[in-house]
Amino acid sequence: MPLHRAGIQGELGAFSQEAARQLLGKVQVVPFPTFEAVFRALGNRKIDSAVIPIENTLAGSVHENYDHLLRFDMRIAAETYVRIVHNLIAAPGVRFRDIRKVYSHPVALNQCLRFFSQNRRIEKIPFYDTAGSVKMIMEQRAVDAAAIASEVAASIYGGHILKRSIEDDRRNFTRFVLLYPAKRLPPPRRASRWKTSLVFTTRNVPGSLFRALSAFALRDLNLIKIESRPLHGKPWEYLFYLDFLGRESEPRVQNALRHLGELADFLRILGSYPEGRTPRSR
Amino acid sequence: MPLHRAGIQGELGAFSQEAARQLLGKVQVVPFPTFEAVFRALGNRKIDSAVIPIENTLAGSVHENYDHLLRFDMRIAAETYVRIVHNLIAAPGVRFRDIRKVYSHPVALNQCLRFFSQNRRIEKIPFYDTAGSVKMIMEQRAVDAAAIASEVAASIYGGHILKRSIEDDRRNFTRFVLLYPAKRLPPPRRASRWKTSLVFTTRNVPGSLFRALSAFALRDLNLIKIESRPLHGKPWEYLFYLDFLGRESEPRVQNALRHLGELADFLRILGSYPEGRTPRSR
Repeated sequence: MPLHRAGIQGELGAFSQEAARQLLGKVQVVPFPTFEAVFRALGNRKIDSAVIPIENTLAGSVHENYDHLLRFDMRIAAETYVRIVHNLIAAPGVRFRDIRKVYSHPVALNQCLRFFSQNRRIEKIPFYDTAGSVKMIMEQRAVDAAAIASEVAASIYGGHILKRSIEDDRRNFTRFVLLYPAKRLPPPRRASRWKTSLVFTTRNVPGSLFRALSAFALRDLNLIKIESRPLHGKPWEYLFYLDFLGRESEPRVQNALRHLGELADFLRILGSYPEGRTPRSR
Repeated sequence: MPLHRAGIQGELGAFSQEAARQLLGKVQVVPFPTFEAVFRALGNRKIDSAVIPIENTLAGSVHENYDHLLRFDMRIAAETYVRIVHNLIAAPGVRFRDIRKVYSHPVALNQCLRFFSQNRRIEKIPFYDTAGSVKMIMEQRAVDAAAIASEVAASIYGGHILKRSIEDDRRNFTRFVLLYPAKRLPPPRRASRWKTSLVFTTRNVPGSLFRALSAFALRDLNLIKIESRPLHGKPWEYLFYLDFLGRESEPRVQNALRHLGELADFLRILGSYPEGRTPRSR
């Protein structure tokens, strides 16, 4: 049987690859340059599933991926959290005191400012991708340069970790979801706690969100996430992202969804899936 | 009288400078390398005010700046929206057909993928900053390179705009806020519509958010934004960002805030300020 193919955005060694490992174990990870390309490949059956980031504790929700989820009719089958750990990685044999330049994605460089202020001889150089910066210093056999990236990137490209976890803020987690086309969703795993994610819109009259949330509050369903987003081109209409504890097949959840359906102009279930272990519970 | 000094993050010519112009008119804009440095300078009276991004229609809320708002006890005095327009900028005399390399921040490069797929001879090169990439190509008198940045960056560094608005998605707006230390808030402007922003936490028992929102729904106050954010290290506690239409000094708003205060474990008003013209209303 051919190996399961999971699509990610970014180079091999990106944090998405670690998420794919946590969600699927040993599979073939297929990198794509953009999120849209991942969704398109999943729609065209070029890959079996996709693993994409949906929110980060410091940077917030990845709106682009919520948009793609709606547009391509994909369903969430599982979720996982990856702690974003930035490591200083160099070619084997290169010593820390030789390092004069460090390459990485600007977001990663900016998350390690304490390291750079403590090592003023080292210059930050922006690069396209965290994992790609490791690939580059290894290919160039750099003797005075290092990269900032994940442990997986170090091992894929044969880099040596000089310093672990140099990020300023350790509360840096990204939530990834495993996606399948709605029509090819595999049978569910067993789990004790389930989460359901949905998107809905209401007209922004006072109290409309309050009434929408009554569908959950009146049935003691616990909300995990809520976020509003203005709808472009539709003044005063809002899109809401909502996650709550419960499974779509439970009668209580079905009642809540039917009730919400009466109140919302648009409602789409993004998926019902086993709750991932969250950074909060560790 | 010395010119008002407004702090921003990024090089001169960044979109924050356009926001400062919209909010304050002609002032001295003082650039800082990080958001934290802006807040620190405002706390130390090195600048009179700060103009910082708080959310973007594609990228979501800037959680880091919400954190700084709480930590440094700053208040929002005004808001504005800036449409993020990416322009292709080169030194005067350089023609479009000569361009082989384009420098910019990777986020900006990634928002112009259609341009690059239509011009395959042109290589994308990541740079630290959008405005900084214009400064660099002008200093180097590059004859085969361009930068992607704002119109303001082109005019500050004397660059010539070869192509306007090459971004893929025009629904790209950033909301900026004008901040003062709570103790040095200037007297309010006159306005017909006010917005109030606040942060609160509740224990995550079922229905707790529903009850909190009743403070607004029962008084017909219209919510503009709601977002939940898990509190690290406090399992099952959540922080909520809320914006609603109304002014802190109105009796109806005061009643709602007192009611919310009874239900929330923590409540902080971030500011009450004239509503900015939103991209939705244009």
